[in-house]
Amino acid sequence: MIYFDSDYMVGAHPKVMERLVETNGLHTVGYGRDEFTDEARSRILQACGLERGDVFLLEGGTQANAVVIDRLLDHNDGVIAADTAHINVHEAGAIESNGHKILTLPNCEGKLRADDIRRYVADFYRDETNHYMVRPAMVYISYPTELGTIYSKGELAAIRGVCDEYDMPLYIDGARLAYGLAAETADVTLGDIAELSDVFYIGGTKCGALFGEAVVTRRPELLPRFVSLIKLHGATLAKGRLLGVQFSALFTDGLYESIGRHAVEMAMRLKAGFVEKGYELYIDSPTNQQFFILPNDKIDELKATASFELWGPLGERETPVRFVTDWATTLADVEALIAAL
Amino acid sequence: MIYFDSDYMVGAHPKVMERLVETNGLHTVGYGRDEFTDEARSRILQACGLERGDVFLLEGGTQANAVVIDRLLDHNDGVIAADTAHINVHEAGAIESNGHKILTLPNCEGKLRADDIRRYVADFYRDETNHYMVRPAMVYISYPTELGTIYSKGELAAIRGVCDEYDMPLYIDGARLAYGLAAETADVTLGDIAELSDVFYIGGTKCGALFGEAVVTRRPELLPRFVSLIKLHGATLAKGRLLGVQFSALFTDGLYESIGRHAVEMAMRLKAGFVEKGYELYIDSPTNQQFFILPNDKIDELKATASFELWGPLGERETPVRFVTDWATTLADVEALIAAL
Amino acid sequence: MIYFDSDYMVGAHPKVMERLVETNGLHTVGYGRDEFTDEARSRILQACGLERGDVFLLEGGTQANAVVIDRLLDHNDGVIAADTAHINVHEAGAIESNGHKILTLPNCEGKLRADDIRRYVADFYRDETNHYMVRPAMVYISYPTELGTIYSKGELAAIRGVCDEYDMPLYIDGARLAYGLAAETADVTLGDIAELSDVFYIGGTKCGALFGEAVVTRRPELLPRFVSLIKLHGATLAKGRLLGVQFSALFTDGLYESIGRHAVEMAMRLKAGFVEKGYELYIDSPTNQQFFILPNDKIDELKATASFELWGPLGERETPVRFVTDWATTLADVEALIAAL
Amino acid sequence: MIYFDSDYMVGAHPKVMERLVETNGLHTVGYGRDEFTDEARSRILQACGLERGDVFLLEGGTQANAVVIDRLLDHNDGVIAADTAHINVHEAGAIESNGHKILTLPNCEGKLRADDIRRYVADFYRDETNHYMVRPAMVYISYPTELGTIYSKGELAAIRGVCDEYDMPLYIDGARLAYGLAAETADVTLGDIAELSDVFYIGGTKCGALFGEAVVTRRPELLPRFVSLIKLHGATLAKGRLLGVQFSALFTDGLYESIGRHAVEMAMRLKAGFVEKGYELYIDSPTNQQFFILPNDKIDELKATASFELWGPLGERETPVRFVTDWATTLADVEALIAAL
Repeated sequence: MIYFDSDYMVGAHPKVMERLVETNGLHTVGYGRDEFTDEARSRILQACGLERGDVFLLEGGTQANAVVIDRLLDHNDGVIAADTAHINVHEAGAIESNGHKILTLPNCEGKLRADDIRRYVADFYRDETNHYMVRPAMVYISYPTELGTIYSKGELAAIRGVCDEYDMPLYIDGARLAYGLAAETADVTLGDIAELSDVFYIGGTKCGALFGEAVVTRRPELLPRFVSLIKLHGATLAKGRLLGVQFSALFTDGLYESIGRHAVEMAMRLKAGFVEKGYELYIDSPTNQQFFILPNDKIDELKATASFELWGPLGERETPVRFVTDWATTLADVEALIAAL
Repeated sequence: MIYFDSDYMVGAHPKVMERLVETNGLHTVGYGRDEFTDEARSRILQACGLERGDVFLLEGGTQANAVVIDRLLDHNDGVIAADTAHINVHEAGAIESNGHKILTLPNCEGKLRADDIRRYVADFYRDETNHYMVRPAMVYISYPTELGTIYSKGELAAIRGVCDEYDMPLYIDGARLAYGLAAETADVTLGDIAELSDVFYIGGTKCGALFGEAVVTRRPELLPRFVSLIKLHGATLAKGRLLGVQFSALFTDGLYESIGRHAVEMAMRLKAGFVEKGYELYIDSPTNQQFFILPNDKIDELKATASFELWGPLGERETPVRFVTDWATTLADVEALIAAL
Repeated sequence: MIYFDSDYMVGAHPKVMERLVETNGLHTVGYGRDEFTDEARSRILQACGLERGDVFLLEGGTQANAVVIDRLLDHNDGVIAADTAHINVHEAGAIESNGHKILTLPNCEGKLRADDIRRYVADFYRDETNHYMVRPAMVYISYPTELGTIYSKGELAAIRGVCDEYDMPLYIDGARLAYGLAAETADVTLGDIAELSDVFYIGGTKCGALFGEAVVTRRPELLPRFVSLIKLHGATLAKGRLLGVQFSALFTDGLYESIGRHAVEMAMRLKAGFVEKGYELYIDSPTNQQFFILPNDKIDELKATASFELWGPLGERETPVRFVTDWATTLADVEALIAAL
Repeated sequence: MIYFDSDYMVGAHPKVMERLVETNGLHTVGYGRDEFTDEARSRILQACGLERGDVFLLEGGTQANAVVIDRLLDHNDGVIAADTAHINVHEAGAIESNGHKILTLPNCEGKLRADDIRRYVADFYRDETNHYMVRPAMVYISYPTELGTIYSKGELAAIRGVCDEYDMPLYIDGARLAYGLAAETADVTLGDIAELSDVFYIGGTKCGALFGEAVVTRRPELLPRFVSLIKLHGATLAKGRLLGVQFSALFTDGLYESIGRHAVEMAMRLKAGFVEKGYELYIDSPTNQQFFILPNDKIDELKATASFELWGPLGERETPVRFVTDWATTLADVEALIAAL
């Protein structure tokens, strides 16, 4: 069986695992006040080109989203997100469980459009006695999106502009950031993401770590008493250095970038294989998630060779499907899959 | 430097780490639906002597407490706990952040007394029009307690009795369960804990794992839709098998018990050393946490050799301190410490 | 100035006020355990044709919605509602502030359609490992809707059917119930509402009371410990008898029905006047809210005579507006308005 | 039967009721944007001697406490209160339901002591890595307290001092403020309360209104977007002018003060009667709540004449009881009670 279900099906990249083993017997203080976490913080800030700024290492993506959004919103504020956003669909209501409303706008290939945001917010502020609607107080996007698509620098700058206009922080969910940055069509760097967002997170879990996400901000004043809030959310790792060690490894010798490039290269070959064999793209994704529309009998047939996800309910004759690559995907895997098409 | 600050300062027991390395390259489904998690579940249920029952693997203790208590309490219910309880003092208000009141009773060497619980609950139910006080709806204790003490089987049975009388689930926080079970004076087994509680958790983080706690219940009907609630709390690990692999290793060939026994043996030697040298016990703990009252100048002197925690504010001339052992503590460590006294 | 802004601009119907004055000097026990509240409960249950059932008197609509929905939903459940629903748009995020997600479906003239609900819920239950989406666990509709429209008995029965199929309570927000029942095209009675819903509320604030809403259920087992939850929400009136006195008056000698009929009659005359003068309906409402599309200069002109609300942002040349009648609207008011058109 | 159970057993003071009747037929805008609310705000600010400041009218005390505390606390902050505080004991967990921990200190005759607060807060700030305990971020006291006692100006100033030292707002619950100000031993005025607190509320429900409490602050910047938060809590009255009319009446011609004086005078006569007849005070209260220790058979006997509350569980031979006076208590009531002793 060849595995294309998702990018969380295998352990950590060997270089990450190696460092965990090497450091296993060392004693450090707990709760992320150790030297490995310090090192990870430095390396990440440097990679982001941030002189000033802060980094917080958390265990997972739903957690990172919940804690950051809880921090950025006041009691009676809402977060603008695409209707397809991970926080809106796949996080079991975590944002609402903290008391915050998600204000959804229709997605365009998984993305929000700056104009839609502006129109929504302008409409809210039109009536100054409007105390009974939820105030749109921050914007959530993901890079890449749930559909594997990426924002151009221009699109991000436009959203940044609306955020500045209405004084709303922009938060970028980077669960699969490595793959978004490695896309051939990407015109943004890690530094651009750091600069254009107020807060974002660098995904570890889906990008080569055992687990872990690095929340980064160029504006630490937006996250006051954040260490305490992380604990309140049950998101504090006692042996915090586990996250420090992993992110330190990922940001040594360009490992994070190289993981991204490898998976995207595999994904592009996979896409090319499907296209050559005449299958239709469900969406044209430049990152490690690839979406095709397959006949149902072909789906059944392929299941003998590879595991992958249906993307939505089974259609009458054909159904969208998703194939995902990661650091562990080999060229042989991809070729075997294509051969089985 | 010899480290006695806490039991989360070093990585995983080598046998746990070994299994993580061995399984690192394998593909499994995510979110705890993998075979390693199944294996851990089986081994744990067997070790608990539970034929029926369920096990859920979570990342950390604050999280486990928050999710379990959120599940066991209705909107307007409270949890009875000792004033010294971890949930009341050291979890940043996590229980309250989920909307639940902690109803504290005075501790007796870190423990709750069955009679105090009965009196409190009886008083609540005395007036049937009592709609405006918070209903005591579950009991939280820890085994061992924050002060290293343990409940006798008789004490647990008495609390169980009050819980049955008023139909309140009993939840046991077992962050350091291995050490409580390994105490020489302990008269309860893992099976007793499973039987006397409704829900409890087996601590991994502080007992030899990298991280992870196993929530166990003999009454799965008390935790409906728990997998979804875990996600809502941001407590779901994408690569869930990491927890499965670790707990499977801990429950193979008696590793969990042996970790407990080792640390307690080291703690007993450490205690004997302090006592022999004439230092006063702050409390007489039979587990891996040891508490002494030391002169402040001795504290300063010892800091050159060993790291440990002050237990409360610095006194005028002497101060309570805590020394903690774990799987990595060696006899040489303990002897060097005693020599430095 | 003639007032058509809303139905909360004037005090209570004189008969209600009279009873408040008459009873003002009497002593009763507090918190709704008094005899006036008992009387209101009996009268309401009788009017609803419920032998078994319960009634709770609350202060306002946002409160009633928040408390009922908080009670009917488990921690990780959501409520299905139209995108135009009052709880989704005009309650400042009260539902989310209690931790619950609103699962919105597109409205059809303010109403939900049974088929849309069935499709959404069926899709949720399609995949039984679907633990990370919010479970649709109840349905919220209002009668009449935000747009003044009403459900037919057949439409309600169809929604009831979906609710039964998936074991979801149906909750009806009756903030303007008097006007919905009094509509000429209405084919449901108060008894039907009580029977087709699991829980609903009879609006007092907008239907002749100073303030107050009566939550009614034919299934009291759905609202366990509700009195305590009401208090937790800060929704308990110390002098609870004020609500008892008012609802008792409203349900004496058909006052509630007669208030509904009067306001609807005024609204129908008002609509006829606009239509005769050639103005376009924004929506054809059979209840006390009337919506027209008026040229912007006509709007400016009318403001000298009457107060009313713009329904949305000012259009380029014309804008939807709303006129609302209530117990205090007189025929003279309506005629003066029409004369000013 | 003569009623001494509480101060919420009868309607509004006749002068308040009269104004509600007079204004009943008038049209005003809703939600507290009306001229009566403006008038109440002006009168209250003037009575408080505040040139700058703001006033918000809410429906009830539990509500006022919940909304104010929710506004003053950040997500992971706690409120310091006496263990006997109304918010800690009698509000069904409302504060915790909004996610906030109550940090209790032992009461001294119902009161907090400045030194206890200082010690607690100093201990919290002792360790600057203390991220996992709940930050004490505001202080809640009531004037008068649950036990009818009052703070002296010196005591209030001392608490104010601690609050200033640690930058914590001081919030005073004035559910029975009229009676506290009217106490013979009181050395604070309404102006002092306004000046020494950051936020407080003037109780209406228990002091002559039908219902309603006026939240007052000399520092409006502490309550940003408060109108929206009130709505989110379901605490917004659609016909907001009802509160405006009542508070306007209470603050016309010294009515609020005179209600306080009358009830306290009645309470003092009542106390004198009990003392003369040789009964023991449970606590020496200078306000409208009076507490005695009565033999159980005397309690049974008195119940034929008067209604009153047991203050705690029935003792073996004697039990504390509470008698409460209000605007409606007459000298004849008090004399009849004393005669029955």
